[in-house]
Amino acid sequence: MNFPSKLIEDAVNEISRLPGIGKKTALRLALHLLKHKESVSEDLANAIISLRKDIKYCISCHNISDLEICSICSGNRRDKHIICVVEDIPDVLAIENTSQYNGLYHVLSGVISPIQGIGPDELNIESLIERIRNPTSSDKVEEVILALPATMEGDTTSFYITRKLKELQVKVSTIARGIPVGGELEYTDEVTLGRSILTRVNYSAD
Amino acid sequence: MNFPSKLIEDAVNEISRLPGIGKKTALRLALHLLKHKESVSEDLANAIISLRKDIKYCISCHNISDLEICSICSGNRRDKHIICVVEDIPDVLAIENTSQYNGLYHVLSGVISPIQGIGPDELNIESLIERIRNPTSSDKVEEVILALPATMEGDTTSFYITRKLKELQVKVSTIARGIPVGGELEYTDEVTLGRSILTRVNYSAD
Repeated sequence: MNFPSKLIEDAVNEISRLPGIGKKTALRLALHLLKHKESVSEDLANAIISLRKDIKYCISCHNISDLEICSICSGNRRDKHIICVVEDIPDVLAIENTSQYNGLYHVLSGVISPIQGIGPDELNIESLIERIRNPTSSDKVEEVILALPATMEGDTTSFYITRKLKELQVKVSTIARGIPVGGELEYTDEVTLGRSILTRVNYSAD
Repeated sequence: MNFPSKLIEDAVNEISRLPGIGKKTALRLALHLLKHKESVSEDLANAIISLRKDIKYCISCHNISDLEICSICSGNRRDKHIICVVEDIPDVLAIENTSQYNGLYHVLSGVISPIQGIGPDELNIESLIERIRNPTSSDKVEEVILALPATMEGDTTSFYITRKLKELQVKVSTIARGIPVGGELEYTDEVTLGRSILTRVNYSAD
């Protein structure tokens, strides 16, 4: 694509570096910014810069935070006896949005993947063990919920963490895999369906 | 969606103001920026700010330009006897990418749309008439090609411009509407097919 201006070429190149945005979409976004007030572009640019510059991560759970300890870890109403282990930050947001979980989190920032050269030392696993071994507050961690992706890498990571936690006398559980709510049995793949039968739960009509 | 940090909330809100980008995509983009070096975010922000701040428009054709007169209008090899009238800047890029046109352009920055309150005075129509009436160089404009969208608004604008140009002794043409190259007759809508028959062109097997 030939651009009539170096400025628009630069902007399109930078915007199209974002994942899932090609040159044509980038051009559309750049022209959108040109059609609107200068403050729209400035607000966007400032938000991006200060996000990257001033962002902090919670020293306890490694979630994004405005302070040294995030609002979940420091929350009075959270159950500090349970830690839910997730791959990355969007997973925390996803679980929080369900309003079904009231415990703490631990963000690994990835999963073990030998192909991509990510070993246990690249992840926040050691700090998880440390959190359980030496709790900062008087609350002893009683349960660790593994909420990692149902992939080979996720399963490997779950297995590794479970082995590491064995000596620490903590209950380890994993989120249920099964048929999504509203899903049809006949269209579910056999691995999921098989797992949902093996991990069936008691049913009561109360 | 509840965000763990004000910074990420601001960034997501600003990014999701862009057309076609929702909150979830905006969050994905924000987390992408967080995973990469600070310079990636800075380059993006700077490109956006300088695009909006320093952009110039060609005083002759209203296309985006780094100088007062754009590279097309000042180009030595361009045919200055033809002006192609387009709705907006992406149309210039699209036509330039075909490598089939060597004349000049005129960007209207919209089309006449009474519903949206856009009349002829909001568009760069007067400056088009002026370009033809009083050419800056010795090259008289001989033809105006209307390359406006095949919508009610586009047709209205074409009609308005044609009426305005009547007294100026300039040839007015419009780009051909018809079946796209590679398109199948049976799947083409009847308006397009009908128009492609009415505006049939001579065929030679040379």
